[in-house]
Amino acid sequence: QIDSARLWGSIHDTAQFGATAKGGVRRLTLSSEDKQVRDWFRKACEDAGLEVHVDALGSMFGLRKGRDMSKPPVGIGSHLDTQPTGGKYDGILGTLGALEVIRTLNDAGIETEAPICVVNWTNEEGSRFAPAMMASAAYVGDFTTDDILSRKDAEGTTVGQALDSIGYRGDKPVGFQKLGCFVELHIEQGPILEAEGKTIGVVDSGQGVLWYDGKISGFESHAGSTPMPLRRDALATLSEIVLAMEEIAKKHGPNAVGTIGEAVIANPSRNVIPGEIAFTMDCRSADGAIMDALDRDLRAAIAEISARRKVEVKIDLVWRKPPTHFDPKLIAAVENAAKTLGYSSRRITSGAGHDACNLNTVMPAAMVFVPCKDGISHNELEDATQPHCAAGTNVLMHTVLAIAGV
Amino acid sequence: QIDSARLWGSIHDTAQFGATAKGGVRRLTLSSEDKQVRDWFRKACEDAGLEVHVDALGSMFGLRKGRDMSKPPVGIGSHLDTQPTGGKYDGILGTLGALEVIRTLNDAGIETEAPICVVNWTNEEGSRFAPAMMASAAYVGDFTTDDILSRKDAEGTTVGQALDSIGYRGDKPVGFQKLGCFVELHIEQGPILEAEGKTIGVVDSGQGVLWYDGKISGFESHAGSTPMPLRRDALATLSEIVLAMEEIAKKHGPNAVGTIGEAVIANPSRNVIPGEIAFTMDCRSADGAIMDALDRDLRAAIAEISARRKVEVKIDLVWRKPPTHFDPKLIAAVENAAKTLGYSSRRITSGAGHDACNLNTVMPAAMVFVPCKDGISHNELEDATQPHCAAGTNVLMHTVLAIAGV
Ligand SMILES: NC(=O)NCCC(=O)O
Ligand SMILES: NC(=O)NCCC(=O)O
Repeated sequence: QIDSARLWGSIHDTAQFGATAKGGVRRLTLSSEDKQVRDWFRKACEDAGLEVHVDALGSMFGLRKGRDMSKPPVGIGSHLDTQPTGGKYDGILGTLGALEVIRTLNDAGIETEAPICVVNWTNEEGSRFAPAMMASAAYVGDFTTDDILSRKDAEGTTVGQALDSIGYRGDKPVGFQKLGCFVELHIEQGPILEAEGKTIGVVDSGQGVLWYDGKISGFESHAGSTPMPLRRDALATLSEIVLAMEEIAKKHGPNAVGTIGEAVIANPSRNVIPGEIAFTMDCRSADGAIMDALDRDLRAAIAEISARRKVEVKIDLVWRKPPTHFDPKLIAAVENAAKTLGYSSRRITSGAGHDACNLNTVMPAAMVFVPCKDGISHNELEDATQPHCAAGTNVLMHTVLAIAGV
Repeated sequence: QIDSARLWGSIHDTAQFGATAKGGVRRLTLSSEDKQVRDWFRKACEDAGLEVHVDALGSMFGLRKGRDMSKPPVGIGSHLDTQPTGGKYDGILGTLGALEVIRTLNDAGIETEAPICVVNWTNEEGSRFAPAMMASAAYVGDFTTDDILSRKDAEGTTVGQALDSIGYRGDKPVGFQKLGCFVELHIEQGPILEAEGKTIGVVDSGQGVLWYDGKISGFESHAGSTPMPLRRDALATLSEIVLAMEEIAKKHGPNAVGTIGEAVIANPSRNVIPGEIAFTMDCRSADGAIMDALDRDLRAAIAEISARRKVEVKIDLVWRKPPTHFDPKLIAAVENAAKTLGYSSRRITSGAGHDACNLNTVMPAAMVFVPCKDGISHNELEDATQPHCAAGTNVLMHTVLAIAGV
């Protein structure tokens, strides 16, 4: 059994780095707050006897030796970055839970056959730089390191510059740390476990994701003197797209969602009809065929709206992550650990994307979910209980022991 | 006859202050570009023999003596500030046209009975600070000077600070310069004169304006794991409001318009459902009863949308300017001047608001319109011809001579 109070302590100690007035955390990837939590994490890993290395994209790897160093390590961990309006658990539980597993094994004097590697992946959230789960995507070869290093945030800062500014451009090439498999603990970020009173979610699959960048070019004109029928209003165009996406997602639901999270009017003024808007779209489904249908329906709706309104709309698919089906043997190992420990559990699909989804494309991976309050995440009010966090960490530890061998 | 080439020269010389790549002008009120054009204008007025004074809100008054200084001056002028994506004529034609009238009278050695006062009103556009026509509204007593001085732009800078930063907080109290009447020359900013091939618009009325500040409070949550039916999406709410306003304006049209020009998502992120949006609304009609109906219908639509979506929407009416009916005698004087000069003309309603609309509430006022290309304004492509600008300035001069007496 892990030390529940110690785990809780590390979650709440690190929540100071980027703490918000509403009780959440704002710790955008590669920001000064991210540097603070990284420094804390590096020291904690070193104090736990791990050998810490940082790769060229800032991902942190803390290795605990195994008896048989010819075996690839069992990877565990998650991420320490948050959304602009993030909470104290998303990613953090999985990373500090992994650290807690190491501390517990140390205290109990337990050696494993295979080594264990604790990982903090850079930019899982994707809100400062696209795509989400950026560093794990590069790790599995979806993107080159150079491509990722050149990605820019809204201010034009590149990933490379951001890494340098906090001193976390590591000296190891991406992929230097081989892993045999990866297990990630996370809050559910959805309402199911809580509603059903289950303690553990055994994640068997994950939704695929489509991310688009969009740009609407209408025509700026006078709010007072331009008759309604002559307008080419970029915001009215966006409004129709937002509502069309909502309808399309509902039509393909319950297994589909669609969101416009960012929309910025260029040169806004109260008495000017908006002429230009940049926006993003995020569509998901656990079913690849539905993802294709979402893409098709969305493009058709946008074409119709833009033609009718005589406004140009460009959309650009910047990321496509297919649905995930986790490794059956690892899924069984998680399920078995929950059962052995006496926790109620159910199989579940992840609505959110996770680094484990990327790793699953090149190695066996699995995930452990614990309930979060009202299913709320990407919100400062995100919450989870100490017993649930401890239960998930225990399941993580027992899964690791089963895979790594004692 | 005024000097068409000289007028054209001053319009194009001053267009350098804030010139944009697309051929427009970005000269927000009380910005450094506004200071440049103000310095130019002050010198040009002084060179033309005017005595220039600046009031506490930065409005500039250049007085040309009349034979009978007991008579109140005839006010002419407009504004030199522009929209973020503004053109070279909106306001500028009326201000530099007024200067051209003075220069022409000087050259011809014409003295008038009543004095003439050339005015450059501060912040007509209203895009940096609300409301539009700010300084003329204070001049006629709609707002106190202190109230206006404390208004803030999006960065939190007050009008007072902005005035000080460019050295245009004048030493004269607002209202120090009495005027007997006011005549403003302006581009139409709409398509009617051009479509009908008329040179002069004799403006007999102006639309009333409603300005609102709005705030939507939904709930931020995860774009992937939040099912569509559980969302409280601020952007979807805004989208319904945008389209409802469009419908309402059309329903009450052709004599009504409605625009949402600004909308800013708080803490935007691609994979977060927008939780909070600040936005503005601008509704207009030349008919007071329709203005009331717009307000009523809009509030009802917003109440229905916000209740259905379980999202809070607050709207705050920050400005209400009733419709304008210009002075019949001055309207006749403008019409007569156009006729005498042999220009085709028609009566017209102004879609835009103007300083003359404010002045009309305390003194006789009138306006002269000239066509602009495709009715385009509040756009960098705004355009007008040299002959039309000269014709409007001639009508302005002959109207002034008729009122002031030669
Ligand atoms: N787990 C999580 O919130 N990931 C962020 C990436 C996404 O799914 O949008
Ligand atoms: N004339 C003009 O564009 N005025 C700006 C104020 C407004 O009507 O919105």
